Amino acid sequence: MPNYFSSDFKLGILGGGQLGKMLLYETRKFDIQTKVLDPNPEAPCKIACNEFVRGDLMNYDTVINFAEDVDVLTIEIENVNVDALETLENLGKKVFPSAKTLKRIRDKGIQKQFYKDSGIPTSPFKLYDNKSELLKDFTQGEIQLPIVWKSRTGGYDGRGVSILKTEADIDSLPDTPCLLEQKINFKNELAVIVARSVSGETKTYPVVEMEFHPTANQVEYVICPARIDDHVSKQAQEVARKVSNAFEQVGLLAVELFQTQDDEILVNEVAPRPHNSGHYSIEGAFTNQFEQHLRAVLDLPLGSTESKVGAVMVNLVGDENHEGNVYYENIEKILELKGVIPHIYGKAQTRPFRKMGHVTIVDKNLNTARQTAEEVKGLIKVISK
Amino acid sequence: MPNYFSSDFKLGILGGGQLGKMLLYETRKFDIQTKVLDPNPEAPCKIACNEFVRGDLMNYDTVINFAEDVDVLTIEIENVNVDALETLENLGKKVFPSAKTLKRIRDKGIQKQFYKDSGIPTSPFKLYDNKSELLKDFTQGEIQLPIVWKSRTGGYDGRGVSILKTEADIDSLPDTPCLLEQKINFKNELAVIVARSVSGETKTYPVVEMEFHPTANQVEYVICPARIDDHVSKQAQEVARKVSNAFEQVGLLAVELFQTQDDEILVNEVAPRPHNSGHYSIEGAFTNQFEQHLRAVLDLPLGSTESKVGAVMVNLVGDENHEGNVYYENIEKILELKGVIPHIYGKAQTRPFRKMGHVTIVDKNLNTARQTAEEVKGLIKVISK
Repeated sequence: MPNYFSSDFKLGILGGGQLGKMLLYETRKFDIQTKVLDPNPEAPCKIACNEFVRGDLMNYDTVINFAEDVDVLTIEIENVNVDALETLENLGKKVFPSAKTLKRIRDKGIQKQFYKDSGIPTSPFKLYDNKSELLKDFTQGEIQLPIVWKSRTGGYDGRGVSILKTEADIDSLPDTPCLLEQKINFKNELAVIVARSVSGETKTYPVVEMEFHPTANQVEYVICPARIDDHVSKQAQEVARKVSNAFEQVGLLAVELFQTQDDEILVNEVAPRPHNSGHYSIEGAFTNQFEQHLRAVLDLPLGSTESKVGAVMVNLVGDENHEGNVYYENIEKILELKGVIPHIYGKAQTRPFRKMGHVTIVDKNLNTARQTAEEVKGLIKVISK
Repeated sequence: MPNYFSSDFKLGILGGGQLGKMLLYETRKFDIQTKVLDPNPEAPCKIACNEFVRGDLMNYDTVINFAEDVDVLTIEIENVNVDALETLENLGKKVFPSAKTLKRIRDKGIQKQFYKDSGIPTSPFKLYDNKSELLKDFTQGEIQLPIVWKSRTGGYDGRGVSILKTEADIDSLPDTPCLLEQKINFKNELAVIVARSVSGETKTYPVVEMEFHPTANQVEYVICPARIDDHVSKQAQEVARKVSNAFEQVGLLAVELFQTQDDEILVNEVAPRPHNSGHYSIEGAFTNQFEQHLRAVLDLPLGSTESKVGAVMVNLVGDENHEGNVYYENIEKILELKGVIPHIYGKAQTRPFRKMGHVTIVDKNLNTARQTAEEVKGLIKVISK
């Protein structure tokens, strides 16, 4: 095994956002040297990495030059120049996740087709090269509304996705390669993070549950473990592991799943990196997802994915009516509550719905954690003043 | 409450070693700006703080100038210029722990006398201004060997302390202000960390136990919770809280205690900061000691001190036969064991017995954690090659 600890070994990270910032807690803990690339001079990773390079993640030459002196290259965001990663792999550089995986994921059409070809359960879909093809199908009555429309590329955090309910919704679509996907009337939205190391050791985290707001169609709480039947959990973990193996993923793979009304598990989409649905693990799991990602891409033994305690995660997003210098109203009040740990990503400016941080609530009793999470949600506001 | 989070607020930290490094995980988590002073240009805190100043912690002017633009000043090591802290307090600067507390602690004679005057149980002792006074007592037969000798100042990590068994031991003592203290034949060596905030909120961590090597007289494992009777735990926590209140301490106070053969609790010594005996809390407690110290000195509500799981901590010290570039032999083997988390402080050079890191072992069953800790201890070696 190479000597990673307090050595000359250097890990390169593409992207310097909050996921990178949390990954850096672990590289610091292991004293592993890091080099981070991000276009934002005030990126959350700016401090705590050994070397920060400002540059465009989508620029071929920038990525190639950045990677020259790193021993292993990983990502904290998928929107990077994948051709550069491919070149680097051909030059013998270790790149995790692989360019192949990123290519399969960044185009949602290819991703869906890959699931179909790999025998992985996913919702029925149809691909379209452009809008007119889609309109043709519609006029021929081959499209039943409501239906889910997704742009094949460029979608992120809900962008590039919409639910078509009326003909007007279809008319207003952009002309871009896209896919239509059956709208799943799901019982639960679940997620499973699978860790897979260079040598193929695989460990699966417990299933987490996304609890939605009763009226607003928005995830409010990520709950670990999910409050579902054991056989459904096992099934979800099996499907997730199958996806990780199909991609031959190295590192973490976060698999978002639907539990249908009749307890079928369908893959929605994946992220080949640490993921929002795994933030609870910093406080809740024996091995947090960031340390696990590090272990996986460095081919170290994977750690236990068991939970120490029940955990609920609440995202801190910018209040819709505020823009400007951020202020976390009532943060001192939530700190009074047992097992409440805020994580502030370090973005100076808030914007409506911008991800500014998250709060983890842990308790030996999951229901207590869930109740505390509701108090937290009711108290804290991300505003500007 | 001042706005600490993603604001202009700046926390100053005197000392840039491993305790500061671990404190910086928490300032990063809360996005609180930090400025660190340390003489070592390669101090573990060098990265991850917002501003690093190289300078002498014992130099009056250096400390005064460093503190000028910080809002709150804290320490991660006691050996700092306390007169400078006193001046800063008189200028209205918030300094936690206070100069008064540091003065009481740095002179072990004053510290012992303070316990006596405050009605805090501690072992019988006598102060000496110099060696000849001590020799006079000895020749008059007033000193029963074996007895513990401590230099009143300058002692750290066992230095400045020795057990006098023979007249030769006495002859070889340096001529310095010192104290003699009755050697306690203790049943257990215990420690309790007490957190006390600016406004006086106090929380006490569970009692931890230092398990000694059966033959070598050296702490091998720090175990939380201590395997002692509840009434002894309660007593130890009460004594520790009394000590924290007597010092009017702000921040953490680690109180090292002896449990005598007849279950009396005696205070040995204290540290007014995060402490080795609290490292387990990073993985084991609802609120780790570094976040707790931050909450206390910023007058935020204190977090729960309860344990999530059982925890055992093993120090990683340099092998006695090795000096040079550090190599952590078998670290990949200990990573295979459940609940094992290594912390590498980031010192490039190892020396015999130098503190290079620590390993936390957590498990829902404390005995299992203790057994795993023994495996860890048997496997990992801090060497040079």
